[in-house]
Amino acid sequence: MRRIDLNCDMGESFGAYRFGLDEELLDCISSANVACGFHAGDPGVMRRTVHLCLSKGVAIGAHPGLPDLAGFGRRELAVSADETYELTLYQLGALHAFVRAEGGSMRHVKPHGALYHMASVRPELADAIALAALRVSGELVLLGPPGSELLRAGRAHGLRVAAEAFADRTYRPDGSLTPRTQPGALLADPAQACEQVLRLVQDGTVPVEGGGALPLEADTVCIHGDGPHAAAIARAVRDRLVRSGVSVRPVGS
Amino acid sequence: MRRIDLNCDMGESFGAYRFGLDEELLDCISSANVACGFHAGDPGVMRRTVHLCLSKGVAIGAHPGLPDLAGFGRRELAVSADETYELTLYQLGALHAFVRAEGGSMRHVKPHGALYHMASVRPELADAIALAALRVSGELVLLGPPGSELLRAGRAHGLRVAAEAFADRTYRPDGSLTPRTQPGALLADPAQACEQVLRLVQDGTVPVEGGGALPLEADTVCIHGDGPHAAAIARAVRDRLVRSGVSVRPVGS
Amino acid sequence: MRRIDLNCDMGESFGAYRFGLDEELLDCISSANVACGFHAGDPGVMRRTVHLCLSKGVAIGAHPGLPDLAGFGRRELAVSADETYELTLYQLGALHAFVRAEGGSMRHVKPHGALYHMASVRPELADAIALAALRVSGELVLLGPPGSELLRAGRAHGLRVAAEAFADRTYRPDGSLTPRTQPGALLADPAQACEQVLRLVQDGTVPVEGGGALPLEADTVCIHGDGPHAAAIARAVRDRLVRSGVSVRPVGS
Amino acid sequence: MRRIDLNCDMGESFGAYRFGLDEELLDCISSANVACGFHAGDPGVMRRTVHLCLSKGVAIGAHPGLPDLAGFGRRELAVSADETYELTLYQLGALHAFVRAEGGSMRHVKPHGALYHMASVRPELADAIALAALRVSGELVLLGPPGSELLRAGRAHGLRVAAEAFADRTYRPDGSLTPRTQPGALLADPAQACEQVLRLVQDGTVPVEGGGALPLEADTVCIHGDGPHAAAIARAVRDRLVRSGVSVRPVGS
Repeated sequence: MRRIDLNCDMGESFGAYRFGLDEELLDCISSANVACGFHAGDPGVMRRTVHLCLSKGVAIGAHPGLPDLAGFGRRELAVSADETYELTLYQLGALHAFVRAEGGSMRHVKPHGALYHMASVRPELADAIALAALRVSGELVLLGPPGSELLRAGRAHGLRVAAEAFADRTYRPDGSLTPRTQPGALLADPAQACEQVLRLVQDGTVPVEGGGALPLEADTVCIHGDGPHAAAIARAVRDRLVRSGVSVRPVGS
Repeated sequence: MRRIDLNCDMGESFGAYRFGLDEELLDCISSANVACGFHAGDPGVMRRTVHLCLSKGVAIGAHPGLPDLAGFGRRELAVSADETYELTLYQLGALHAFVRAEGGSMRHVKPHGALYHMASVRPELADAIALAALRVSGELVLLGPPGSELLRAGRAHGLRVAAEAFADRTYRPDGSLTPRTQPGALLADPAQACEQVLRLVQDGTVPVEGGGALPLEADTVCIHGDGPHAAAIARAVRDRLVRSGVSVRPVGS
Repeated sequence: MRRIDLNCDMGESFGAYRFGLDEELLDCISSANVACGFHAGDPGVMRRTVHLCLSKGVAIGAHPGLPDLAGFGRRELAVSADETYELTLYQLGALHAFVRAEGGSMRHVKPHGALYHMASVRPELADAIALAALRVSGELVLLGPPGSELLRAGRAHGLRVAAEAFADRTYRPDGSLTPRTQPGALLADPAQACEQVLRLVQDGTVPVEGGGALPLEADTVCIHGDGPHAAAIARAVRDRLVRSGVSVRPVGS
Repeated sequence: MRRIDLNCDMGESFGAYRFGLDEELLDCISSANVACGFHAGDPGVMRRTVHLCLSKGVAIGAHPGLPDLAGFGRRELAVSADETYELTLYQLGALHAFVRAEGGSMRHVKPHGALYHMASVRPELADAIALAALRVSGELVLLGPPGSELLRAGRAHGLRVAAEAFADRTYRPDGSLTPRTQPGALLADPAQACEQVLRLVQDGTVPVEGGGALPLEADTVCIHGDGPHAAAIARAVRDRLVRSGVSVRPVGS
């Protein structure tokens, strides 16, 4: 039976600010990437998000980000490898405490935003993240783009890794994502997102800009938790996968 | 053989800002209270401080504070019991990760500044801190003033506790500390500080304002890590204790 | 012709976080209290909010808050009078720059949340805020509760002041607001809010808990910008006032 | 009579953290670049620094930085031109309020750290800073490296500009500074710094790595305010200039 993990960023509210549709999406996904208080999230949000994930049976991962709440962790910041190790370890440790306090276990690590992008291509940052994950637990699964430095670093540190594709982002012929600044970067139509995910699972390919398809390895598919179509896409993808006989469950399970 | 723990706040630098005389003081104390990034400290400082403590054989505890870097955690902030639990658990988890990553174990918890004072007298905040500590590890020792809600809450949660006195602060006849805003709140003379610590250990009493002495329980004595006399006081107290046949070692050891 | 000012807190979004219904409410109010980046708001939000207010002809005031983004400025923080002066002046200066850059002028000052409550009863904090306002411009109008230290301090510093009542909060017989933690603190029914505002303007009284009414001075009425009923209440109050022949315009105009 | 401005970064303390030797250096310099609370400084520090500068007759400029206190504004952050305009205007407005409140006037703007470097080579960031300065006051002088985008943008916006050289940094044959990560980047010997400044003023040249000299325009010379040799260098440079008949006074005066 074919299988795939559906992951979504969660717990990105902060103080009085609500962000995302965590409760609706938790019924559709198998893994939650929980913000750890740097790019988003705060201790109270983390506690409630962890509790909610456990009550829904969704696997919990850490979603560490750059220390840039004002930029939601989306702006590149020139952090060194040491700083990357330190800020990742700090955030993983903080989330780990909440997960354990609620009786669960942390399953994976997925860097957020600019940190994800930077660590995908810069080996020393990827190694720093992998080392921080390893120091917290050798059982953690490290997520990253197919073929990225993140996956290489995870393997090099003896961690399990999971290649991630996106349900509602379009791809370019070189396998990279169409930048968000360009038109057509996002699939707003749930049917298109479903189609993209199903082909990833069944054929191991993804449609690319300009036509045609590209082989793409994907152990987990990211569903965005914000945006006007988030809930509809998540529900549609989940339903389509289940109807097609695909098992939706966490990586490493 | 009589024994006492000497503790000191550590790791309170932040980014480009240096604070305290950590390296000098580590040779004199038995326990370090390591800032966790809220009132002071940052991930890099935490890593280096933990490493330094382990290399010197000094026991490591968490020193969680209010989220008020601008006020160094010294200003009361109206946090609820839930928020107190959450911000404590977050900070304990973060430090715990660094301690484990460096191969050590976290030994105690001492809240910082205004959080220490608030939790000493407000039972719901003390319980929140004790619960957060327990959720991280039942082996942690909770520090607080003699007779405080912190010690009561720690015991109520099944934790070991340690009553804390101060080497260089003066006491009032009711057992409270002379407020820092008043003259004579601080003992600048190392000899006086030594005398105060020795009487605490040998007689279980402390001199009070206006003359006379008060019985005061003390398992650990706090040495301040900043101020012009910090290093001299720490060295003098340590030497005096050792010469007097008192064993200086961590609480719970 | 009777007149009243309708004010609303604005520009409380932060980075990727949206807060409030600024655009809808700007059509109903005469004065906007613009967050200045401490309890909420950021430089980009401030710029856009100021621009929007000017384009709608709504008077702009500063809405300085405590440096507590995580608590949205609603938690009391033990700031000194000096710190209050300094954090107010900083925020007023920052907003002032945006207002002038967009070609407008800053008209009033209304402290936010816990700072508003603290300065309403503590004369040294009220004086600090009034002095900061005066140092920016002697033309500023200082808002505060009727009979508060804020109004006293404003007058003592030679500023014009405006007494503020609330459209959708209920009052207790002593003239204080029913705390938000109690049932019935908020009027969810737009009709009730309209009634309360109209009586304030026409009779100078407000209904109190348990029945009866209280004389209450009000130069300006606060409409909340968040909550499920915010837009409906704002629209209803505005329409009711206009239909009743009341002129809705900024204080000091 | 030849003239030069000596400038120094000031007011970079934060809360309980002391940074730099502001008081000693103020006797040597003619212009202070005052931190505005983003990379360093806080409202209280700003107030005291402005007061101190005015009491010493030192010209006050704004020293806006990236919102990265943990990195002291030294790490590049991918801010857009709009964000650069907004964060600069915010900081300039805040400092302006303190300067006016103390009875002074703001004279110049010098971006800090990574913002300085980014804006020196990226025209859209330089234009954003120049526009923000202009919106605060057309009288401001914009500082930047000789030949930089900052100077170009300042002139393009009708501002006066001042080319800046460094007293204690070494230069490479292409006119750029030797990166701090390389040996010999800093002149630790006050005599060498004096020599470098005197040649800048008298000959308009600067020694370069590997021998020889380069023509370098300099209206103002930066003296570093931290580091073990800061006070000695500042005093030596000042004295040497005065003895050599050079007038030390603010740009634009």
